[in-house]
Amino acid sequence: MSTVRDASFELFRKHGMTTIFGNPGSTELPMLGPLPDDFRYVLGLQEAVAVGMADGFAQASGNVAHVNLHTAPGVGNGVGAIFNARANRAPLLVTAGQQVRSLITLQANLTNRDAVEVPKPYVKYSHEPPRAADVPFALAQAIHNASLPPAGPAFVSIPMDDWLREIEPVDYETQIARNTGGRAQPSPTAIAELAERLRKAERPAFVAGPDVDASPGGWEAAIELVESQRLPVWSTPPTNGSRIGFPESHPAFQGMLPPAVGPLGEALSPYDLVLVAGSAIFPYYPNIPGDFIAQGTELIAITCDPDEAARAPMGEAIVADVGLTLRALADELSEPAAQREQPPARTEIDPFPPGEQISGGEVHAVLAELFPQDGIVVLESPSSTAALRNKLRLSHQGSYYFSASGGLGFGLSAAVGVQLAQPERQVVCVLGEGSAQYAITAFWTAAAYGVPVKFLVLRNGEYSILKWFATLEDVSGAPALDLPALDVAATAESYGVPSVSVGGGSREQSGEQLHAALSDALAQDGPRLVQVDVAPGMALV
Amino acid sequence: MSTVRDASFELFRKHGMTTIFGNPGSTELPMLGPLPDDFRYVLGLQEAVAVGMADGFAQASGNVAHVNLHTAPGVGNGVGAIFNARANRAPLLVTAGQQVRSLITLQANLTNRDAVEVPKPYVKYSHEPPRAADVPFALAQAIHNASLPPAGPAFVSIPMDDWLREIEPVDYETQIARNTGGRAQPSPTAIAELAERLRKAERPAFVAGPDVDASPGGWEAAIELVESQRLPVWSTPPTNGSRIGFPESHPAFQGMLPPAVGPLGEALSPYDLVLVAGSAIFPYYPNIPGDFIAQGTELIAITCDPDEAARAPMGEAIVADVGLTLRALADELSEPAAQREQPPARTEIDPFPPGEQISGGEVHAVLAELFPQDGIVVLESPSSTAALRNKLRLSHQGSYYFSASGGLGFGLSAAVGVQLAQPERQVVCVLGEGSAQYAITAFWTAAAYGVPVKFLVLRNGEYSILKWFATLEDVSGAPALDLPALDVAATAESYGVPSVSVGGGSREQSGEQLHAALSDALAQDGPRLVQVDVAPGMALV
Repeated sequence: MSTVRDASFELFRKHGMTTIFGNPGSTELPMLGPLPDDFRYVLGLQEAVAVGMADGFAQASGNVAHVNLHTAPGVGNGVGAIFNARANRAPLLVTAGQQVRSLITLQANLTNRDAVEVPKPYVKYSHEPPRAADVPFALAQAIHNASLPPAGPAFVSIPMDDWLREIEPVDYETQIARNTGGRAQPSPTAIAELAERLRKAERPAFVAGPDVDASPGGWEAAIELVESQRLPVWSTPPTNGSRIGFPESHPAFQGMLPPAVGPLGEALSPYDLVLVAGSAIFPYYPNIPGDFIAQGTELIAITCDPDEAARAPMGEAIVADVGLTLRALADELSEPAAQREQPPARTEIDPFPPGEQISGGEVHAVLAELFPQDGIVVLESPSSTAALRNKLRLSHQGSYYFSASGGLGFGLSAAVGVQLAQPERQVVCVLGEGSAQYAITAFWTAAAYGVPVKFLVLRNGEYSILKWFATLEDVSGAPALDLPALDVAATAESYGVPSVSVGGGSREQSGEQLHAALSDALAQDGPRLVQVDVAPGMALV
Repeated sequence: MSTVRDASFELFRKHGMTTIFGNPGSTELPMLGPLPDDFRYVLGLQEAVAVGMADGFAQASGNVAHVNLHTAPGVGNGVGAIFNARANRAPLLVTAGQQVRSLITLQANLTNRDAVEVPKPYVKYSHEPPRAADVPFALAQAIHNASLPPAGPAFVSIPMDDWLREIEPVDYETQIARNTGGRAQPSPTAIAELAERLRKAERPAFVAGPDVDASPGGWEAAIELVESQRLPVWSTPPTNGSRIGFPESHPAFQGMLPPAVGPLGEALSPYDLVLVAGSAIFPYYPNIPGDFIAQGTELIAITCDPDEAARAPMGEAIVADVGLTLRALADELSEPAAQREQPPARTEIDPFPPGEQISGGEVHAVLAELFPQDGIVVLESPSSTAALRNKLRLSHQGSYYFSASGGLGFGLSAAVGVQLAQPERQVVCVLGEGSAQYAITAFWTAAAYGVPVKFLVLRNGEYSILKWFATLEDVSGAPALDLPALDVAATAESYGVPSVSVGGGSREQSGEQLHAALSDALAQDGPRLVQVDVAPGMALV
């Protein structure tokens, strides 16, 4: 007879979920040991790291990733990362141990009281099975929920004495054999109408969001549609740009939309019809009021997320799979819009005048020179996000991961997960020395598991983006915006990642040192880190 | 006219809450800047650290501590530490920024959707005021809720555009002027009855829990009661021993109760009446079934927590202030129980036979030799908790802080907060190299703010307690229970804490090196760290 554990591992196997990220505690041991030979466990030293790694792994593999946490305190440490995963649409199965059933009612130590409540706002499904026999079925439901659109995390709390209970086939066989699929296409009528509106539009534009990259076929269909219809292309604001939906070196690409209400509405005002694919409308920030959209501009969003469709403050929305919808639209509009002019060339922003120290933009110019063909960027450097996008102009699918939530701690940990999912592509993780701190122990996992991420840390001695926001918000005298004496290279080295620090001299010297150090790091096996001292302030270009 | 901000800072001042722990984001800037001159801000580089520091500060100061977090992702990173604070009965005001009111409904970036839901299971109060004018009143309610028994965290989410709104006196003056007090004494009848039962008991015993230490006057009253009534004293199981409720070198002290159901019931079976003060009944762990209590043993608990009283699986409970109740009982029982024999001497457990490497118990013997008069231990070394308690036998009030929740990440961060609250007493923070990782960046705060905690890290290369639990649970082959190559000394040094590593040689050599290094660290100003390599396995004595 099977146990709950046998049936659950059979379920994980069926879904290709043989990697488990986690940080174990006593309540997880009965699940974990002995780990079957065809499974691997990737340890994070803190739960934010374990969840972040799973987030990156799920996004970069396109499959549900499993992260196992320690009852209440472990789940608690992971909630910020679960919030990020929700915003990133990362399909995650989050499991957590729980006290034995006989000790829950008296709330013995490590009881996860109200286990399902804490993660609930950030997961698609949150459940603690009322009987041991329901565990495999609950896990199956969580996996389906995580992967059905919009993808996201799902949570199951499992009493530790459930795993070795015997289970009858009726309680698991049909349940774990199921498959579900939710990629839906709009009706032919809706596609025909949308195509007709695009044909008739005089000044249409396309806005590419992260789900164009995440939805299979979306990337190619978007390029085909844009080229045949001669559409100028914008990306959604970088604040929500968890992935890049369109090649940023493409001649049709105009740049990133600004993230605040007024400027964004203004940026779209030249167009009569704006087609937005795979993005919220819009991830506004900071608060610069204005019109959401200009008079005479119509907006149509394609999203797989009913909530995203419902909560937009203007425009129409079609809820369907982004990739399939773009494909249907591209097929419908295969005849070139020869009457339209080609989109104008992107307006290049002049770089800031050079300062004494190397700037974030200049760092990213060096990175762009060396960036490997088919490389992947995982980015969490809030003061140089715009500069990196501008300098690298990433143009391959699945090349960019960023936390859509605005939360920190994603970058360093997700980079490890992305690299594990994409061992053939070089991952470069770009961090600020402040943002590196939210999941700092991921360096240990990179070193201990030999995950060859190359880390580039920009050190400017401050929370630059907060100083910038303080100016915008007219706030002065806020404390703790300076970060003296943080040395990420030394910390990474302490966790076993070979690291070098460069900079501190003239711009030219720093640039040369950085070029040499980064070339060297990229040529090595295993993880490496380069820290570069940069000028304070925001690097927008 | 006042602003919401003026009124709120007036409220904080009134409650002596002029230290703010936090990790800022853009949504918190309007609260923080400019920070009034009489306030200080203590920065944590990750939210688990900020909350942990506030937890230690609150407990060691006996006052509500304020920790300010960044909207959803910041709160999310802090949930594990909030869970710890709840278990520790730490009175915390947890505030978090929120999007501007006009952008919440459309869920602009960084909106804390369902802001009050995530922390709700772990806080006593969770609120987002519906109007800016209600912010000071909500903060006042949170402070009252946090400090009223049982103390714990309370949460307020505050839209960032509320702070500079003008506010009418009617909306804040009477609200923030209020005081509340909840230290209640049982009725005189209840005290008289309890005293009579104790007088008549033939073999009574006293179990001291953490709230004896936390409740003013409890410590002295417990000693007086125990001495006059000749009561043998046990501490609650170390799993819940967030504080020590009775001097552990006192002749009446018998040791720590075992934490599992069967052994604990057995340990209390010699007594006919067991008076438990200030503890849950009981923080059981791991699961070793048996009788909760022996036939013929009666149990009476004194607790300030109605839930703790309700959920105990046996015995009677009196809900009242622990310190006041013990004082009333000691007064009522001032006549010595001369007929009773004095409690027996504590049964000393033989130390393990010495191995080749120094053991955790031997490390704590060295610590005990050097431990400063009036020193404070903050402990998070799961494999050597019992050995430390056994070797140090702490005997001063407010000398010991431990996470009652079983969650990790408390120790390192709380030590910084305890030291800030008790600058005249030496804090020694004892960590495992694994447990140090959950809030590792607290080293930076210790260094940056010159907080002179002395850290002692026991490095055994493994999650020892999990290996021990695996044996207990009959689990083999669990992955990731070894922790190769963690070097906390190097990591702490990278954050600016001068650190040394000792050990690796013979027991004698390691002991001498440790003695010298620890003596030196204790003699220095500022934070210092000593890492010692110890034998793997649990150190119980």
